[in-house]
Amino acid sequence: MTDLLFLGIDGGGTKCRARLRDAQGNLLGEGTGGPSNIRLDPDLVWSSILTACRAALAQAGLHERDLGRIHAGMGAAGAGQTSAVDRLLARSHPFASFAIDTDAHTAWLGAFNGGDGAILIVGTGSCGYGGVSGRCHYVGGWGYEISDDGSGAVIGRELLRRCVWVHDGRAPGTPLSDAVLAEFGNDLEVLVDWVGKARPSDYGRYAPLVLEYAGRRDPLGMAIVTEAAAGLGSIATRLLDLGAPALCMFGGLAEPLRPWLPPPVQRTITSPMADALDGAILLARTALSGRQS
Amino acid sequence: MTDLLFLGIDGGGTKCRARLRDAQGNLLGEGTGGPSNIRLDPDLVWSSILTACRAALAQAGLHERDLGRIHAGMGAAGAGQTSAVDRLLARSHPFASFAIDTDAHTAWLGAFNGGDGAILIVGTGSCGYGGVSGRCHYVGGWGYEISDDGSGAVIGRELLRRCVWVHDGRAPGTPLSDAVLAEFGNDLEVLVDWVGKARPSDYGRYAPLVLEYAGRRDPLGMAIVTEAAAGLGSIATRLLDLGAPALCMFGGLAEPLRPWLPPPVQRTITSPMADALDGAILLARTALSGRQS
Repeated sequence: MTDLLFLGIDGGGTKCRARLRDAQGNLLGEGTGGPSNIRLDPDLVWSSILTACRAALAQAGLHERDLGRIHAGMGAAGAGQTSAVDRLLARSHPFASFAIDTDAHTAWLGAFNGGDGAILIVGTGSCGYGGVSGRCHYVGGWGYEISDDGSGAVIGRELLRRCVWVHDGRAPGTPLSDAVLAEFGNDLEVLVDWVGKARPSDYGRYAPLVLEYAGRRDPLGMAIVTEAAAGLGSIATRLLDLGAPALCMFGGLAEPLRPWLPPPVQRTITSPMADALDGAILLARTALSGRQS
Repeated sequence: MTDLLFLGIDGGGTKCRARLRDAQGNLLGEGTGGPSNIRLDPDLVWSSILTACRAALAQAGLHERDLGRIHAGMGAAGAGQTSAVDRLLARSHPFASFAIDTDAHTAWLGAFNGGDGAILIVGTGSCGYGGVSGRCHYVGGWGYEISDDGSGAVIGRELLRRCVWVHDGRAPGTPLSDAVLAEFGNDLEVLVDWVGKARPSDYGRYAPLVLEYAGRRDPLGMAIVTEAAAGLGSIATRLLDLGAPALCMFGGLAEPLRPWLPPPVQRTITSPMADALDGAILLARTALSGRQS
């Protein structure tokens, strides 16, 4: 009963996932909870974490009293923001220890088991992250306004920007621009109203359409995807230049964008050794051994 | 006392300007009032218009009772938005007639006295507008999110975007990027916090800095200004291709950006015949003669 337990937590905006392993690495159970983006109310985040944790404990046939044996590690979007982490850590928790880092860090820990390597996450946003010789590096990932090159949000915004050119007569129309402009009734006032309310995820919903048309050699789609791939290639190249020997790609747009990347980048892509939940478990183990040494 | 009076109004976000002329075109007076962006409360906008109008009347030695002799024309940012115009026109006014159109339209009316020609406005935003053979065309000007190529807001945002590349090691630093990154303590978290609160005018405040460094051959500054000029060149080219024989430039960035424009565009640039206030007077006269014919 006094054996160590390790809990890996993935804290996302819509749900929280948790995985429980024993000290030997055996899988004991998994569970999910509610929203756990750490920019949210800390009480809500802890409630989501504990819901996911208790579900994993129950699956393992363990109990509330076993909470105190758990060393937890959490990867969370927004954990680069010190103030949000401080707010979360100001609450008490029932674990033996609790370590937190960014979701990029735990994805990287899982992918390379803590060894040298880089990851490239491409979904609504984009972010590069790598660890080399014990030093970690972020490349990009500062939000779609001024960063997130090659992300779904940037692809979608670029699509609408170029559709304005087509509507103005500044660029030739293509089947892709025809389809998008028709969606807005060929009325830029309607389009601009939509833009005024659009969030990054709204722009990002156009990325699959752009990729689909690009795959059919639509000139506008190909131009946008080529530009996105160049942006991602620049992030990857920087990480490889920093000394990362290989690259893992994650996120909903990783697979469709991969064939568009520059061949020297494509050649470095490998499959991850493990996922971000196991990366979070490694975070917990590393934090514990750090405290013990 | 029954002679016609014509009032030209320029409705801006910070102030309202008005100019009064008689039927022969003689200048009688000018005045200013408060904020009159027509997206604001209609009562506030009318109050600003009438303040500016009464100041012009006073300068002309005229009186409250002369309001009924005035045929007014107003150019206003946001007048392309039908709902805002409808809100404004739902209020009663003391004028004999009142016509309203966009600030681009009155700037064009003034610049070419209603004849064929195009204008390019470059300040915080950018917009192209032209009238050819009685047909008017907007090119660009749909806001900095997906349009406003070459504007101050887009130049400033592009500066910060490329400064992130420099900070990441994805692009070489230059004196311009050094200066900007130092302003944010070389801390991208500080920069991203700033971006989260930034309005287009905040980005636009970086445009003079970019132009200054570009003038000193800073590679980053030159790259951004070259891209901005290409965007403006594409707007101008479209207007010229639609048949506009000449181009007038307006806005705080028109003069510094002009030498960067493609030579075939530069060659078409002329001085405006008159300003937007006289364009608004022409709007009022045209509306009146349209009603009388």
